[in-house]
Amino acid sequence: MIFSGKGPMIGDAAMTEDADFRRRLDEAAGATESTLATLLGAEPLPGEIARPARLLEAMRYVALGGGKRLRPFLALESARLFGVEGESARRAAAAIEMIHCYSLAHDDLPAMDDDDLRRGRPTAHKAFDEATAILAGDGLLTYAFDVLADPATHADAQIRARLVLALARASGLGGMVGGQALDLEAEKASSPLSQEETLRLQAMKTGALLRISVDFGAILGGASAPVAAALGRYGDALGAAFQIADDILDAEGDEAALGKRAGKDAERNKATLIGLLGLDKARERRDALVEAAIEALGETGLGAATGVLAEAARFVALRSN
Amino acid sequence: MIFSGKGPMIGDAAMTEDADFRRRLDEAAGATESTLATLLGAEPLPGEIARPARLLEAMRYVALGGGKRLRPFLALESARLFGVEGESARRAAAAIEMIHCYSLAHDDLPAMDDDDLRRGRPTAHKAFDEATAILAGDGLLTYAFDVLADPATHADAQIRARLVLALARASGLGGMVGGQALDLEAEKASSPLSQEETLRLQAMKTGALLRISVDFGAILGGASAPVAAALGRYGDALGAAFQIADDILDAEGDEAALGKRAGKDAERNKATLIGLLGLDKARERRDALVEAAIEALGETGLGAATGVLAEAARFVALRSN
Repeated sequence: MIFSGKGPMIGDAAMTEDADFRRRLDEAAGATESTLATLLGAEPLPGEIARPARLLEAMRYVALGGGKRLRPFLALESARLFGVEGESARRAAAAIEMIHCYSLAHDDLPAMDDDDLRRGRPTAHKAFDEATAILAGDGLLTYAFDVLADPATHADAQIRARLVLALARASGLGGMVGGQALDLEAEKASSPLSQEETLRLQAMKTGALLRISVDFGAILGGASAPVAAALGRYGDALGAAFQIADDILDAEGDEAALGKRAGKDAERNKATLIGLLGLDKARERRDALVEAAIEALGETGLGAATGVLAEAARFVALRSN
Repeated sequence: MIFSGKGPMIGDAAMTEDADFRRRLDEAAGATESTLATLLGAEPLPGEIARPARLLEAMRYVALGGGKRLRPFLALESARLFGVEGESARRAAAAIEMIHCYSLAHDDLPAMDDDDLRRGRPTAHKAFDEATAILAGDGLLTYAFDVLADPATHADAQIRARLVLALARASGLGGMVGGQALDLEAEKASSPLSQEETLRLQAMKTGALLRISVDFGAILGGASAPVAAALGRYGDALGAAFQIADDILDAEGDEAALGKRAGKDAERNKATLIGLLGLDKARERRDALVEAAIEALGETGLGAATGVLAEAARFVALRSN
């Protein structure tokens, strides 16, 4: 518990909070799994002509049965800060997870990262076929916006439209999809990316979706602008710490714990801060980001309620898979 | 002008209407091209971190410079029936076209239909590479919902949320994406699809997006339920006629006019009504659908204003590319 002296949680409370965090993380994963399973049921919704069985099976394969569900956890816990729980938060969180899962299925494709293993299972194009993996991704991407725009997610259309806009902007051309495009370009480039370019690439590829998960809580909870901004700073710092931790795991991790192949970054000449700064400096930077994340939580003025999110920042930085 | 005696347009008026229709179709194409070009500009929107140049170029390649823009035309003309013109209608129409264009880029991929030519130009994965074609598609798909949810599209969030939901539902698992999945499955199946299965596949793959284009007009215009339902019946009939016409073009068409390879359906054993009914019966069915479409326009009670949409139904059925 290397940061136990920082942020809203102090001293001996840390171990209690940690247990609380683990329970909440598990609860969020369970709620997300069950919400996704319900949304991906066999029965067509009004306006759907049919739900083709094999495509649906592939979408369920991609979306269900795995992952820490970190983004849904962040959305659910951020919403909880403002007293928002239940179906609204769960559906919104599930929509973010659909975007995350579709991006994994597309990134794993032979034309992209060409991975055979994901979360300890064959990737979608291995378990099904390439065309089905592409379409399952397209289907999940589309369904995320269906879920958010549906009145079942929130009675207020203004909030639904804000969720759609925020998620689209974080996950498209100017966010996640753009980041993946830059990443593929960087692999082929003759000269390595600068630190600034690497940070921007990572902010787009992984940071934007983590940040928007926290923003979802603020949108659902009707947070004031300064509180939303402080939460956003938390999300940005957590996202950056997450990516460094990810790079460290790839450099040091073992495949069994990761559920995917390790050492890929170096092999592919991927742009990482470890390559630019070395492992020690990268770790320092990660730790500073966790401190910044926890400081931003303090600036929300929401007090002890943010303890679970502070623990999430530590977890993200120090996780082993 | 084989249907000139039917529907709201009668006798000698038909030729005038036809010129009017052509002008409106050209205008809609021009407005759509310019709206798409503006939306796909180099400057990042608020909340976007950056717009990577090569990805943006691929998205522009996929979305700009081609096509009849039939879906935007239908959305613009349907909206005009209710007095809605200008930016709202153009942005909504552009969003539909983004979905259409992304679906073409993904369908053309080697893992799917494996086409080299589209609108007389190399397909996206030929002009760029497979990964970029996939990401350009993902980017356009995501951006469509960004555009609809943005307050610039409509001041009323209720309407923006309805547009998002309608488009997502028509183009996802239970619509366009599902239809493409069924189509690929049918190619590999040992026994041919029944007529019912073929009609459902086509309603999903092409019908749903054409239908929703018309629905967009009703949503933007605040149409009453009976008027929206009649317009919807027009959209369904037009969508079905479009698909039969498409199949006839593939069976008879020449590649120069089509801008893509002809005769693919038979070669791939694609499910078409021509295969099931023969050319003559398919033509009869197409003509009956055009009559049904025009009849539905009469049921909207909107009178002569629907003339251009009636002409569109004829055009869709009898087009040569």
